[in-house]
Amino acid sequence: MKKVLLIGIGAGNPDYVTIQAVKALNEADVFFFLDKGEEKEDLANLRRTVCERYIEDKSYRIVEVPGPVRDPGAPDYKSGVHAWHREKAQIFSSLIADELKDGEVGAFLVWGDPSLYDSTLRVIDQILAQGALAFEYEIIPGITAVQALAAEHKIALNPIGEPVHITTGRRLLEGLPDKVDTAVVMLDNGSGLRALIDEDVEIFWGAYLGTPDQILISGKLTDCVDAIQTARTEERERKGWIMDTYLLRRTPR
Amino acid sequence: MKKVLLIGIGAGNPDYVTIQAVKALNEADVFFFLDKGEEKEDLANLRRTVCERYIEDKSYRIVEVPGPVRDPGAPDYKSGVHAWHREKAQIFSSLIADELKDGEVGAFLVWGDPSLYDSTLRVIDQILAQGALAFEYEIIPGITAVQALAAEHKIALNPIGEPVHITTGRRLLEGLPDKVDTAVVMLDNGSGLRALIDEDVEIFWGAYLGTPDQILISGKLTDCVDAIQTARTEERERKGWIMDTYLLRRTPR
Repeated sequence: MKKVLLIGIGAGNPDYVTIQAVKALNEADVFFFLDKGEEKEDLANLRRTVCERYIEDKSYRIVEVPGPVRDPGAPDYKSGVHAWHREKAQIFSSLIADELKDGEVGAFLVWGDPSLYDSTLRVIDQILAQGALAFEYEIIPGITAVQALAAEHKIALNPIGEPVHITTGRRLLEGLPDKVDTAVVMLDNGSGLRALIDEDVEIFWGAYLGTPDQILISGKLTDCVDAIQTARTEERERKGWIMDTYLLRRTPR
Repeated sequence: MKKVLLIGIGAGNPDYVTIQAVKALNEADVFFFLDKGEEKEDLANLRRTVCERYIEDKSYRIVEVPGPVRDPGAPDYKSGVHAWHREKAQIFSSLIADELKDGEVGAFLVWGDPSLYDSTLRVIDQILAQGALAFEYEIIPGITAVQALAAEHKIALNPIGEPVHITTGRRLLEGLPDKVDTAVVMLDNGSGLRALIDEDVEIFWGAYLGTPDQILISGKLTDCVDAIQTARTEERERKGWIMDTYLLRRTPR
């Protein structure tokens, strides 16, 4: 039987790796790295750092393939994502079929946690549902950007006894649901930043969390939004990519 | 200057501890352990295991004090919590004032992550706001029960591009907000389990996540709810305490 590990390596800081992940890294024979357009070099470097730092026996293999790119011209967001997942499923299937021998362990290193806004698990489920390939798989959780954001800003995610809502920039544009006063926003291309500008909210923003390039900005949304948008533009230009997350909190009434 | 570390040690499994937490554990001179009623022995044991397993120089001290208990007879939930935090702030203040010398590092080991449904950070903020004590502090994120639940059930927390709502049993009784189809429920005394029983939802339930006693149950809520309630009752009787978490997911329309 082949085995596939989906290892959450945390959000940016190699120290976010858990002992469980270190054990999993040491169990793997092959690592599958997918390039991801512009983020490519920095991300692949962090994956390499994690392997080099934590794996004791250096006899592992790394198989690197170009990752598919989501078509921004798809008729709607979800159909674009589904097509992208199908493409990934074909690539992952070939990798597992061709690059992994029976009894071997292959690993995908996932930024943050495989359970939160990551497609690897869905793609693996899709391959297994097709039935052409058989393998075991395991998921190793990792520290998410949400947790890095809270720790670095030294804030609690939830008000006492209240919910935490984790959402996307796209969904934030539709407003927050009823009775939700705190939201963490991920996957925002910047367009969600002003969605609640007319309300009395605080923002806790972070980019490149956990890395030496980390930037934190916090305060009233109206006071900070320009600084954040400037930082987003300048940093994206400088590094070629940006990854940011923020928490919005309504001022208690 | 004194320094206080709030170290997330993850939810149950000592392997959930991160490298960052291991470094923080090794930086601490004193660990403050608060007993917590019935959970006392098992929880204190896990904290001890984490110290013993990961700290290289065994010259650290452990200071153990009885933790205050939240008054279930308080006029309402939040005022009960506030009173409980004030009591904790007094205890923590004395610990930091009396048990920590200048230049020393004290640590609180927090189950899961200090940013999610944990009072330690709020209590520390309260002490600093009072201004009588000065110290630095840092937060080290940890794997939450939410992430352990998702990893063990091998599920994604979010539907594609959709939000994740993390809430409490108490709040679930008021129903889910608009447009929220997935919710993770924490701090439920069991009363929230039937809140959505009349709707078409799946449940992914877990107790004692990450520990050798871990129990997982999943399926349609109507089919599973009795088994879950029986397991809750039996296990609480057997171990003297229960800690469980679950994800509810509306069947896609």
